[in-house]
Amino acid sequence: MADELPSMSLKAIGTVRSEIKQAVMLDSGEIISEIVIDSSLTEALDGLEGFSHIIVLYWMHRLASDEIPLKIHPRGRHEVPLRGLFATRTPNRPNRIGKATVRLLQRQGNILRVKGLDALDGSPVLDIKPYIPGYDSADDAEVPQWITKR
Amino acid sequence: MADELPSMSLKAIGTVRSEIKQAVMLDSGEIISEIVIDSSLTEALDGLEGFSHIIVLYWMHRLASDEIPLKIHPRGRHEVPLRGLFATRTPNRPNRIGKATVRLLQRQGNILRVKGLDALDGSPVLDIKPYIPGYDSADDAEVPQWITKR
Repeated sequence: MADELPSMSLKAIGTVRSEIKQAVMLDSGEIISEIVIDSSLTEALDGLEGFSHIIVLYWMHRLASDEIPLKIHPRGRHEVPLRGLFATRTPNRPNRIGKATVRLLQRQGNILRVKGLDALDGSPVLDIKPYIPGYDSADDAEVPQWITKR
Repeated sequence: MADELPSMSLKAIGTVRSEIKQAVMLDSGEIISEIVIDSSLTEALDGLEGFSHIIVLYWMHRLASDEIPLKIHPRGRHEVPLRGLFATRTPNRPNRIGKATVRLLQRQGNILRVKGLDALDGSPVLDIKPYIPGYDSADDAEVPQWITKR
């Protein structure tokens, strides 16, 4: 089946400017970053100001290793049993697309100022979407205990 | 600046099987679909069963046009003024990555049965992530009035 699955190519639409310079397990909730969108796409941001939150898809471009283990200890916590990589948010995945929901503080031309983005400085940005409560959220979501115990 | 932005390539990890055969503006909330992940990656799904909801990133592979207008009338509603494409969820975007939050009904080997996926039948799947309330949701999110008026 593997051979039947298609490939596709992406082109970044912008870049993250952040004080996060390396992958550390920090709480990014308060961090303020800038997303600089290619100036040819500035007009495509019009109307985004009406949303308090946006979804950022970005490329997790810096990785410690080229290997992609199918199972890992989530967040490097060895007391948690091995989990499949798709049950975790590890950046080390077949397609290294990161997804963050962040507060949009300001849009100025082609620059978005956001709060809570955990992308590293220099991360290529793939897409920006408006965050729509109800569509993007699930009120009754449940997670396993190892997620909540930190 | 455009020339500095990097390109990257993706390889699908699976395929959507859905009764949605063409792009119609239907409410997909109740639709049940299957996500068939490449069997070489089955083990990477272990542990996903513990989550009630998952995030599906997929490729919006079928489009009416190759042109990408920077501004559109959201959902084809001509009474809504033109908005930048990044302020909408149009599939017609520079990188055609769709993002859906869906309920995980069942995992059986490499097959995920989900509820509420709006991807068309045959859509290539790019990534599966666990949905984590608080990280993926924003309790205090606000949207412009044209989103809520349907």
